[in-house]
Formats: sequence, C-alpha cells, structure tokens
Amino acid sequence: MNPEPRTPSVRTIKLTLAYDGTNYAGWQRQANGPSVQGTVEEVVARIVGKRTHVVGSGRTDAGVHAIGQVAAFHTTSELSPTKFQRAINAHLPHDIVVTEVEEAAPDFHPRRSAKRKRYRYVIFNSRRHDVFRRAYSWHFCFGKLDVDAMHRAAQHWCGTHDFRSFESRWPQRSSSVRTVFEAVCTRLPPPDERVIHFEVEADGFLYNMVRTMVGTLVDVGRGRCDEQWPAEVLQLGDRKQAGRTVPPQGLFLLHVNYV
Amino acid sequence: MNPEPRTPSVRTIKLTLAYDGTNYAGWQRQANGPSVQGTVEEVVARIVGKRTHVVGSGRTDAGVHAIGQVAAFHTTSELSPTKFQRAINAHLPHDIVVTEVEEAAPDFHPRRSAKRKRYRYVIFNSRRHDVFRRAYSWHFCFGKLDVDAMHRAAQHWCGTHDFRSFESRWPQRSSSVRTVFEAVCTRLPPPDERVIHFEVEADGFLYNMVRTMVGTLVDVGRGRCDEQWPAEVLQLGDRKQAGRTVPPQGLFLLHVNYV
Repeated sequence: MNPEPRTPSVRTIKLTLAYDGTNYAGWQRQANGPSVQGTVEEVVARIVGKRTHVVGSGRTDAGVHAIGQVAAFHTTSELSPTKFQRAINAHLPHDIVVTEVEEAAPDFHPRRSAKRKRYRYVIFNSRRHDVFRRAYSWHFCFGKLDVDAMHRAAQHWCGTHDFRSFESRWPQRSSSVRTVFEAVCTRLPPPDERVIHFEVEADGFLYNMVRTMVGTLVDVGRGRCDEQWPAEVLQLGDRKQAGRTVPPQGLFLLHVNYV
Repeated sequence: MNPEPRTPSVRTIKLTLAYDGTNYAGWQRQANGPSVQGTVEEVVARIVGKRTHVVGSGRTDAGVHAIGQVAAFHTTSELSPTKFQRAINAHLPHDIVVTEVEEAAPDFHPRRSAKRKRYRYVIFNSRRHDVFRRAYSWHFCFGKLDVDAMHRAAQHWCGTHDFRSFESRWPQRSSSVRTVFEAVCTRLPPPDERVIHFEVEADGFLYNMVRTMVGTLVDVGRGRCDEQWPAEVLQLGDRKQAGRTVPPQGLFLLHVNYV
C-alpha cells in the first residue's frame, strides 16, 4: 500500500524588492493602471501554478520608488528561496527586481511585523534640471537651499509625536502618533552637490507624511520660515499649517526592519 | 519719407543640449518615431514663427543619450541667446534640455566645424541589475571585469589609425581613418564600484565605433582575449574580428569641441 499522501505544508516566502515606480500606479493592485503588487502576483502565480496574494509592507504611491520594499506570500511550492528568486526575476519586467528571498516564520506579516521603515527623499537643487534625474528626484530651482537649517529643523520631529499635521487624509487611522528615530538632511559631496537627501526612519508613516515633511523643510531651507516652525506645525495638529506635499518621484522606500 | 526697410540679417544660433535618449528613435528626424532633432525643430519653429532646420554635430542612435550635443539653426529672429534658451526650454519635453545658447559665426557648422568629440560608455558590472540604472548603462553580469587590463588594451587605439574594424556599416565613408586623442577605462570609487566608465575622445567616430570598442574591451576584461588583441583587430581591418556592438543605452555623447 502507498503511504497516505502527505499534506503539503504552507510556507511563508519573504521577498525584498527594488523597483522604479515611474511606470506604475503604485504598489497596490488597482483598476487604473499597472501596479507593482499586481505585476509580482502575476509572476508568482505563473511559477507556483495558482493565484497567490502577495502582501507588501505598505503602499507606495504612483511614481514612488523602492530600494528595499518587503513583501510575502504563502505557498505549498517546495522551490528553494534561491530558485524562487531566479524564477521570479526571470519573469519580472526590468523595472522590478527581487534582491533577496528568504523563508520566513509562519506568522510573519510584512506590514504588521514591521518595526521600522526608512525613506529617502531626493531634491535636485539647481537652476536647470538634469534630464537623467527627472524621474528620481524633485527639481527645486528657486535658489540654493540651506541644508544645515533644514537638518536642524527636522530634529524637532525626532521622538514620539502626533504627526496629524503631516497626514494628507486625516483622520483615517486610530492613531496618528508615530516615533521618528532619525531624520537627516544632507547635501551630497561634489560632483553631486546639487543633490539633497532627506532620510527619515520611524516605526511607521502616515499617508504622505514624508512628502509633507519635505515640503515643510523646503520652506525653512529657502528662508520663508524659521527653524522652529516645524515644531510649531507639529504642535498645531493642523495639516493646513504644514508645507505642501512634494511630488512622488523623489521618494524612495529604503528598507523595512523586522527586528 | 521712411527709410528703406532693413533686410533682417541671418544669425546662426548654437545650442548645447542634454537629452535622455530612452524615448527617442535617435537624434535624426525620421518616420519611425519621435526624434530629438524633430522635437527641437518643432519648438524652434513655434518660437521664430517658421519652419527651421536644426543641424546636429552628428547622429546619436535610438536610446543613446547626450550630455553635450551641439546643434545650430539660422534665423532672422532678434531674440537674445538667453531669451532663446528660456523659450526653448519652456516648450521642450522634460527629457531634453538646452544647457547653453550662443550666437555663432555665420560659417559655423555643428558637424563640419567640430574638431573633437568625446563619448562615455557606462557598464554596470554586477550580478543583478540596478533598476534605476537600466536606461543609463549596459548590465554586464558575467563576472568582475578587469578594468586595468581594459584600460591598457584601449591604449593601442590612441593615435591615428584606420578604424574600419570598428565600423558597423563599412564601407560607407571616403575614409575610416580617425585620430583617437584619449581612451580611458575606469571603475568608479565606492559606493559606485559596480560602475565602469569608458571614455574616448577623437576627431570623429565611425558608425557604432564606440559601442564596438566596448564590446572588444569587454572580451579583454573578462579574460577571453589578451590585452594585445585590440591592436590586432585594428590591424586586421575586418569588422568580424572585433567584439560585438554593445547596446545603446550605456552611451553618452559628452561634448563636442570646436577649437
């Protein structure tokens, strides 16, 4: 007699992904255009032979890029992580790449298990734009920004605060309190001195929070507002007090930490 | 009585242009897709109010980029160079930018007056491609290239030689003799150590010459051919002896010198 057929065990496969968001309507599967999630799901479905839901650590908006997005799916496939990575990359378009595949614990959830996320926003601070950076930065052409002032101003956000002033669609969550661990604003050394990076790491981000933070910092950097202003905006708790939401193409999801 | 109407004098306007060649069928106006030349000509026509021929220093192929392409047109418009630059940039799409406008001597011709041109070819030498560089480099994933060997090999091309071995469509010109002034192959310092630049400056280039030079150097860099081989290819005068023509998206026209 044959032994009873073994019930295949369900595995959790964790993916780390980089993508150029230019040609996508964002991470999340949706009706109005191709999404990164939908593209990855189609590829995984081809490999495992059935429709598979791929969950991300969070949405990225249309035009936003990722260097270290994290996603996961459940499967009974017995492919090794290395073979999954090769197979998925072989089928993905050139603007999405899986940089790492691991088998995760059964209870791993890319969004709920996340402890910290880090974003970078890239400003190209020059009179004329660079045609090769236009999809990967926001062009600020109205004078040289005072990056040191922007950096000092951003320090007011470190710590645990209610960030509702920086959320585009408040109130949509139970709490708008988040902890910012680090906020760094730097101008790159020559020959990239026209490039400004704002990097911020927190236990979570509200909708459009990074892009509204940058809009606020730029008002400091151009001398319209003083360095205390970002602290005042925080205390006022009113989105209308903050700066504008800067465009998506300068934003990169750098990494998601789970420990 | 009014004075006789002054015949407006014809001016030669010289443009320096940068463009991302990704979405163009090349510099030259053509039927099978948008060209950089056609796009610039349409913009100039709108500004001066009549069809205007814009001549470039040379063609760049589909997907090839430029940081310092030079072009010129004749006009009776009296707009200053600064106003021309502002007006043209205001109408150009975001992947083409005019970086300089000057009034040139009446006999200036972007191609015939050119004394030297410099190209850069960018290789991304890594197992996995970088999604943000895919339109601006050629991905070489078959092991780490020996850049020092490539540099030494390229020195055989410096000086005046018949480069017919590196021309895709020979014989199409009266002479395939060119003078190479400099050929430099370098790996960028960290954190960009996966990026290799090959820069070559000459009094002119044959069709696909830079891309065939790179295909030849890569065969040296990966150890398939020794450092003398590029000299032999040159002497054989046979395109079939050279390496393959590498893809266009790694190629940048850096600048054109007129003195």
